[in-house]
Parts: sequence; C-alpha cells; structure tokens
Amino acid sequence: MRVRVLGSAAGGGFPQWNCACPNCRAVRAGAEGYTARTQASLAVSGDGQNWYLLNISPDIRAQLEAAPELQPASSRASPIAGAIFINGDLDACLGALCLRESTPLNFYTTETIQRGLTSKNQFFRTLQRFEGHVTWRALKLNERIALALPRGGESGLDVEAISVGGKVPVHLVGIETDDPRQNIGLLVRARGTDQALGFFPSVAGPSPELEGAIARTQCCFFDGTFWAEDELPALGLGERTAREMAHWPLSGEAGSLAWLRRSMPGRRLLIHINNTNPILYDKSPERQQVLAAGVEVAHDGMELRL
Amino acid sequence: MRVRVLGSAAGGGFPQWNCACPNCRAVRAGAEGYTARTQASLAVSGDGQNWYLLNISPDIRAQLEAAPELQPASSRASPIAGAIFINGDLDACLGALCLRESTPLNFYTTETIQRGLTSKNQFFRTLQRFEGHVTWRALKLNERIALALPRGGESGLDVEAISVGGKVPVHLVGIETDDPRQNIGLLVRARGTDQALGFFPSVAGPSPELEGAIARTQCCFFDGTFWAEDELPALGLGERTAREMAHWPLSGEAGSLAWLRRSMPGRRLLIHINNTNPILYDKSPERQQVLAAGVEVAHDGMELRL
Repeated sequence: MRVRVLGSAAGGGFPQWNCACPNCRAVRAGAEGYTARTQASLAVSGDGQNWYLLNISPDIRAQLEAAPELQPASSRASPIAGAIFINGDLDACLGALCLRESTPLNFYTTETIQRGLTSKNQFFRTLQRFEGHVTWRALKLNERIALALPRGGESGLDVEAISVGGKVPVHLVGIETDDPRQNIGLLVRARGTDQALGFFPSVAGPSPELEGAIARTQCCFFDGTFWAEDELPALGLGERTAREMAHWPLSGEAGSLAWLRRSMPGRRLLIHINNTNPILYDKSPERQQVLAAGVEVAHDGMELRL
Repeated sequence: MRVRVLGSAAGGGFPQWNCACPNCRAVRAGAEGYTARTQASLAVSGDGQNWYLLNISPDIRAQLEAAPELQPASSRASPIAGAIFINGDLDACLGALCLRESTPLNFYTTETIQRGLTSKNQFFRTLQRFEGHVTWRALKLNERIALALPRGGESGLDVEAISVGGKVPVHLVGIETDDPRQNIGLLVRARGTDQALGFFPSVAGPSPELEGAIARTQCCFFDGTFWAEDELPALGLGERTAREMAHWPLSGEAGSLAWLRRSMPGRRLLIHINNTNPILYDKSPERQQVLAAGVEVAHDGMELRL
C-alpha cells in the first residue's frame, strides 16, 4: 500500500486566515522551524494506479497539484477512484464539491454522515451530472468491505469503520444528534492482509473499541489537534476546551500521547494539528516530548509504503 | 481604490484536477509561457485597511496567504469586511464556507442568489455561530448602495448590481429558474466618485444594459472564459458550447473581444479564464489578438490602483 499525506493541519489549516496567534505569525514570517500545512487528508493506493482519498479537504486543489501521481494522464481520466469521509465536518468533506467536473467517483461513509451531507445541501446535486457520476456506498461500523473502482473492478484495498465518539458538526447542531456513526476512524488494508493503516484524525477519547482497533494497525495517523485541554481559552481564542470540541488532547497523564505510547506498538503519526498546537514548532519542548514518546508529526507531502 | 486579483481562472482553476488538455499538461510541466491560476476573485479596498472580496472562490485560503494586506494583525481581527457574490456557482461562492472561524462579515448579493445559497444548504449554518457572525444584505439591480463594515462604519466603497443574463448554477437546475437576478456584474466605486471598477466575470452576451454599465467604468474585469464557441466540444471535453454555458466567447465578429474594443474606452482585463482557453499561453496567436485589441489578461497577484 502506498500512502501520501495530502494535508496535516486541522480545520482552517496552518496558518488560519483570521488567526495571528504566535504560531500563525511565525509561519507567515517564514521563521525557521515552522512549516505551513493544508487541511488533513491522506491518499492511499493498493496498486499504485488507483487512489482513494481519506477525507477531501477544502485544500484539495492545491494538494492534488502538489502530487504528480494524483494527476490525470488523459482528460477526465483521473487516478482518483473516490473518497472515504470520517465525519461531516467541513474540513473533512467540503473539497468533495471541488471534484465535480465529470469524473465518476465512489464515496464511502456511514449513512448517518451521508444524510448530514447530501439530504439538506443541494450543492451536492453538482455531483449528479450523469448516471454514475458519484455513487455513495454505506459503511457499517466494524465491517470490513472492499473498495470498488467506479468504472468496475477492485482497488485491492478494503476499509473498516470504527466508532470514535465525537459530536455532530457545528452546522448540524440542533438538526442531527450525537451518534456513534457521526464520527469514525478507519482501518485500511490491502486485500488479504491483516495489518492495517489507521486513520483516526478526530478522536474524542479512549475506549476499548479504539484500543482494539489501534492494536491491529502497523501504522496509524492519530488525532494531534490540541496539545492542552485549555489551549484555545488560554490564548483568548474561544471558550471551548479540547474535549468539548471532541478532541482528546495530547498532554498530561490522561492525554493521548501517553496512551499512544502504551497502547500501540507500530508507527504512530500525529495529524489534524491545530494552528495553536505548540508541536508545530520543530524546536518546542512539546515537540521533543512527542518524539521522545516514539511518535512522529505528519507533514504535507510525506510518503509511506506499508 | 486598491484592487488585488486573488484569482483569474474559471471554475476548476488552471490546471484543473482531472484535465490533461494541452494547456493543463503544459502548465503542470512548468513550460515557459504558462502560468498557474486560482479561481476568479478580486479584493477591493477604499481605505487600504478594510477589504471586500468580489466572490469567494474555493481557493480562498491559498489566495489570502499570498496577500499580506489581507492577513490579520491580531487574532480574529481580519481586514476582510465581507464579500459580494455575482452568482451562486460553486467557483464564485464555495470559499465563503472556508471563512467560518468567528470573524463578523457582511455578504452582499441579490435575494435570488442568496436564496439559492442559504435556504437549501445547511452548510451555511456554520456562518451563524454568534449574533452578527454573517449578515446578508440584499442588492437590487441598478441600485447603488454603500458597503458597510460589519463592526459599524463605512468602507468608503459602494456597489451597484447589473444584470448580465445567464443561467442558474448546475446544482440548481430544476429548482430555481433563470432570472436576471441569478447572474450579475458589479460596478464598485469610491464614495462620491463616478468612475467605477467593473467586475463582469460571467456575461451571457451583449445587451444595452451591459453597454451602459461598461461605459461607466474606468477599469473593467470581463468574462474571458472561452476563446471559441465550440471550445469544449472541439477538445472532446463535453458537448456544451460557450453560449449554452452562458459565457460569451471572445473570438469572431460577434465575439466579446471585438465588442470590448468598440464599446469601452478604459482599461480592460480578461478574468475567469477557462483552462482550455488558448490565451493562457503567452505566445499564442490568440493572446496576441487580445493584446492587439488593447485588452489585458489578468493574473493572480496583480495589483491596481484606481
């Protein structure tokens, strides 16, 4: 399996358009040790020819133009077969509407997430330009299914959805209810193999289900949104804590970093990193703690082979 | 008035993600004479402090990070006061959802265009995070109104909407009907002055209204989408002609280039240029015809003062 990190930042990217926190100021100024990041997404391929996107962020155009293997060899014949969405947050799915120009695609997600996206957003009619333009396929929790190619045949990959808790997106509060199928992590495997790639960019907290799933990955991208529980309030950038936003902060004894170190033997990479997180600075003590725990920090353009 | 070209391409940008036409192949290969372009949008300011966006394209994040004057001096205090939308096409408005992180904004458009955007797309609830987050203000055709600042006060600019014909966006076909208020051009003026900046990136064809409006501009950005009426079918990239897509092609005796040369004395710049248009190549005969007509080709990052 080939994996490319298309983007590694949380919603808003790094820097974020209306933010002048110390990190955003430093990366805009080109300070050493700071690297700009687009919003979190991976591309995965089982055969090196056909690619599935894990989330489609609003930055998809720039992400694809930075990745030659994701560009078309002939017009309308994109190597992109489709996408899998882990929730209905705009940073996870808005870019789907940027891939509207007449290439057939398969989109996989839970029925709950799909309903939140398509049933009340007529923008999605732009993905129904012809029979077979975008085909939605339902993921059920804890069920491993093959990822098909939109023009027929198999991608050589399969996917399994794991519930990771979490809240409905801000724009669905009062319309949809919190539900285990509103926010998932993914296990992606080459057909016939047991060791998985994990994609868990949005995790509300620990659970036996999560622990069981992570143990089956040989490489896992994990929620690196916030360093501290009170990261935003401490910077005067909002009132909500990390857990109130359904993100498990990295630091502390009950943090995800200590848990990752204990629970997971394979390669671990942080992704979906918020612009306020001190690990964005290469030389910060927090970054050193991450590295000392044997955990990596994903960056845009990173490539892996499993 | 200060003007910055944030993007100059038509929907999909240049190159377009699933296109391998000769232009897209050349720009990806870094060939001399080809310049990448993001999707069409301008930023305008009357005071050099507060900026209005004309359209918010899906490329807005990258466009703002390339423009220091549009970046915040302190957190959540963006110099962006709001936006004006010329139609409901996704390349004109999808980026609005990327500016959701708690900065008050004023959005101006016709009630018809606003209804197509907000009434059936619950994504827009993400712009209602607090009282006064995004305030929609209605434009009426041929009525000059002041652009207010979202925190109070005046921007020093006013705007007037001109009907330019056109069709409803693809995703609204069968839901909304073609209507003069579905697709507009803009005259933007510094308060108390008569000479306007024109923004007409999507024009179905000539009309007395259009001619009257253009005559009042000292500088006008105009629809440069297609060179030829049969540009897409000739490349095997679809069946629709330029006029069927409500864009007036540049070439020929009945084309917009000859009309611009005849009708408009001021500075004229083509914008919203489709990836298939031969004028994208600096050395093409078509580009030479544009220049010989006294018309410029807008590019990303271009700055003007009126």
